[in-house]
Amino acid sequence: MEITHIEHIGIAVKSIEEQLPYYEGVLGLKCYNIETVEDQKVKTAFFKIGQTKIELLEPTCEDSTIAKFIEKKGEGVHHIAFATKNVEEALREMEAKGIRLIDQHPRPGAEGLNIAFLHPKSTGSVLTELCEHPE
Amino acid sequence: MEITHIEHIGIAVKSIEEQLPYYEGVLGLKCYNIETVEDQKVKTAFFKIGQTKIELLEPTCEDSTIAKFIEKKGEGVHHIAFATKNVEEALREMEAKGIRLIDQHPRPGAEGLNIAFLHPKSTGSVLTELCEHPE
Repeated sequence: MEITHIEHIGIAVKSIEEQLPYYEGVLGLKCYNIETVEDQKVKTAFFKIGQTKIELLEPTCEDSTIAKFIEKKGEGVHHIAFATKNVEEALREMEAKGIRLIDQHPRPGAEGLNIAFLHPKSTGSVLTELCEHPE
Repeated sequence: MEITHIEHIGIAVKSIEEQLPYYEGVLGLKCYNIETVEDQKVKTAFFKIGQTKIELLEPTCEDSTIAKFIEKKGEGVHHIAFATKNVEEALREMEAKGIRLIDQHPRPGAEGLNIAFLHPKSTGSVLTELCEHPE
């Protein structure tokens, strides 16, 4: 597999609205998309910095995995997402190398990407996502 | 201030050596530099992905801030570093906007960069670094 760039960094926040003054007013970034991913129980806000997006993740209900993450660890970086050309191939290669997968196959994620998560037990405790732009 | 790209993502690890099989053997990245920053009590290993580096941070002794971080939160993402043209100017701009600074002025960091940290209390709990390449 080849990783071309860091697609995004996912950051768990209690409230996107409360974070906007920092990301827009201080860092000077522009929130270009806010999207709710119903099955993930999460509202997302996107900012672009060079090749990489910052993805703020706000839980939409108490049993969202993001709500549980914040309860356990507090707000902060939730995951890192690497861009690669073919997630299915990457997953098979990783599986063969003994990496524990959360998603056995790619599934649709925010912003129309195909995504899959790797288990942090296999990635030095960093929750890691692989992403591909569908052609 | 203008952020041009994400300069690096700092990841706290107990042992760089134990992580190399994942970063090199699985992700296919190449560790191009290992450097000890004595005054930070940390050994660092660098990998490049597109515009961004992954910086693994291994504590060199028990009273390293990285050792304390791992003890408290476990291994994982420690900080995000944004590249900007002039860190001193950015700090003054941020201070004027009420952002709490850890470093009042830029100081030398790994890989010859001038760096400064912002306090996570002001950055949505994400420990944040600003970096500039000295001209």
